[in-house]
Amino acid sequence: MEKVTIEYRVPYADTDMMGVVYYANYLVMFERARNELMRRCGYSYAECEKEGFALPVTHAECDYRASARYDDVLEISAWVQSMKGVRIEIACEARRKGEEKALARGYTRHAFIDLASFRPCPPPARFAAAMSAGGLQ
Amino acid sequence: MEKVTIEYRVPYADTDMMGVVYYANYLVMFERARNELMRRCGYSYAECEKEGFALPVTHAECDYRASARYDDVLEISAWVQSMKGVRIEIACEARRKGEEKALARGYTRHAFIDLASFRPCPPPARFAAAMSAGGLQ
Amino acid sequence: MEKVTIEYRVPYADTDMMGVVYYANYLVMFERARNELMRRCGYSYAECEKEGFALPVTHAECDYRASARYDDVLEISAWVQSMKGVRIEIACEARRKGEEKALARGYTRHAFIDLASFRPCPPPARFAAAMSAGGLQ
Amino acid sequence: MEKVTIEYRVPYADTDMMGVVYYANYLVMFERARNELMRRCGYSYAECEKEGFALPVTHAECDYRASARYDDVLEISAWVQSMKGVRIEIACEARRKGEEKALARGYTRHAFIDLASFRPCPPPARFAAAMSAGGLQ
Repeated sequence: MEKVTIEYRVPYADTDMMGVVYYANYLVMFERARNELMRRCGYSYAECEKEGFALPVTHAECDYRASARYDDVLEISAWVQSMKGVRIEIACEARRKGEEKALARGYTRHAFIDLASFRPCPPPARFAAAMSAGGLQ
Repeated sequence: MEKVTIEYRVPYADTDMMGVVYYANYLVMFERARNELMRRCGYSYAECEKEGFALPVTHAECDYRASARYDDVLEISAWVQSMKGVRIEIACEARRKGEEKALARGYTRHAFIDLASFRPCPPPARFAAAMSAGGLQ
Repeated sequence: MEKVTIEYRVPYADTDMMGVVYYANYLVMFERARNELMRRCGYSYAECEKEGFALPVTHAECDYRASARYDDVLEISAWVQSMKGVRIEIACEARRKGEEKALARGYTRHAFIDLASFRPCPPPARFAAAMSAGGLQ
Repeated sequence: MEKVTIEYRVPYADTDMMGVVYYANYLVMFERARNELMRRCGYSYAECEKEGFALPVTHAECDYRASARYDDVLEISAWVQSMKGVRIEIACEARRKGEEKALARGYTRHAFIDLASFRPCPPPARFAAAMSAGGLQ
């Protein structure tokens, strides 16, 4: 299963008075990596919404192992951890650039919904196709 | 002209590695006070949007004079600084509770827009009436 | 085990283009409730740091069940879910005021650390005492 | 006077229920561009703090002219607008990539402070030299 990685430089805004990145901000980084994952497989989340589907988060979790700091260049990776029915789980990991060790690792669970009815629905055909083609599933 | 004041306790999330509230977060506090200003004068911003009007920010500025810190209870005040045509300016100030000194003081300028056309429009009648009745104008 | 509840009104800042509160912002709300939990049991997190201890988050998770929206008044509750050794888990839940249904529910796991060494340490005596006295443990 | 430009892709996190980037988030983008400005001139803000100096924001303002949206790739430019005594003003502008029109434009005013005393001080020699060398002043 393929991994997509983006670089992200930590601004002052992301830090807290402990001198490290505040815990909720990792979830925003994870979103940035998820966005890139979908874009690279040829079906961006922006397109997804334009076609009438959304992928709200139904569960999120994260393990915090070490601290990212101001001005660090992070590598944030995302990959599909599982897909089943209306559900998809995307795993994410943040590392300092050039280092092996994960600073934070977690995943988000999403359900495809049809924006017309706001009800769960199977993944749009283009998404499923893109995932397969990209070796992401 | 009347002032509306809310209390706000600073979470860790709002601080940065300097140990003080990050500068952009004051603009969020100002929004909280503006919301309360409209609600108290009987025409909340939520109602405003429901009736098809919005008040996007066209200009914002803030002077930072002293630092708010984690767990401080702040008093954030908002008042109408000017109204003219489609424009309204709302001034805001943050103080530590029980202190006179402003930590941050600024204002936002807004233009009423009609959500049907996304074009500037005069303030909705209910808003103007509410402002007058509340002594806010 | 006792629960502490705060009220929180959702600002525009917390929403996203789906019209609901963005998922990472619940973790900030949870922090607000955790702060209040410690304060009410007589040993605020601010004091904790002044005495040389910190409580970094080592794990966080959240189930998102329904959406909070702009201007909603939420009730956010926090309670101690478990304490064992250097670890403490605090559960949190957000509901619309006056409603039973949880919009979001999750918990954070923390480890006490000694700020002198940045190493895990047992909970400070005052904290443990406060927790017992407050029926929070 | 030279301009430094970074690219930034807008995450869902930055948007609000109006479907556009929330106004306070431009100040975070501006910080990202300021960081790059200092780094490129050879004296990053991280180094600045390590040497015992800081550059807190004393004033910020921004004109909002058009809206950035989710998934837009923005170009954010920063340049030194003025330097005089302990003060420096850095102008910033956000445009959609490949477009001329500014979506938002503003500046921040900063005062150099000595972290030992927290009092205003002249810019560190290395900073002034870097600015001159980089044609930034």
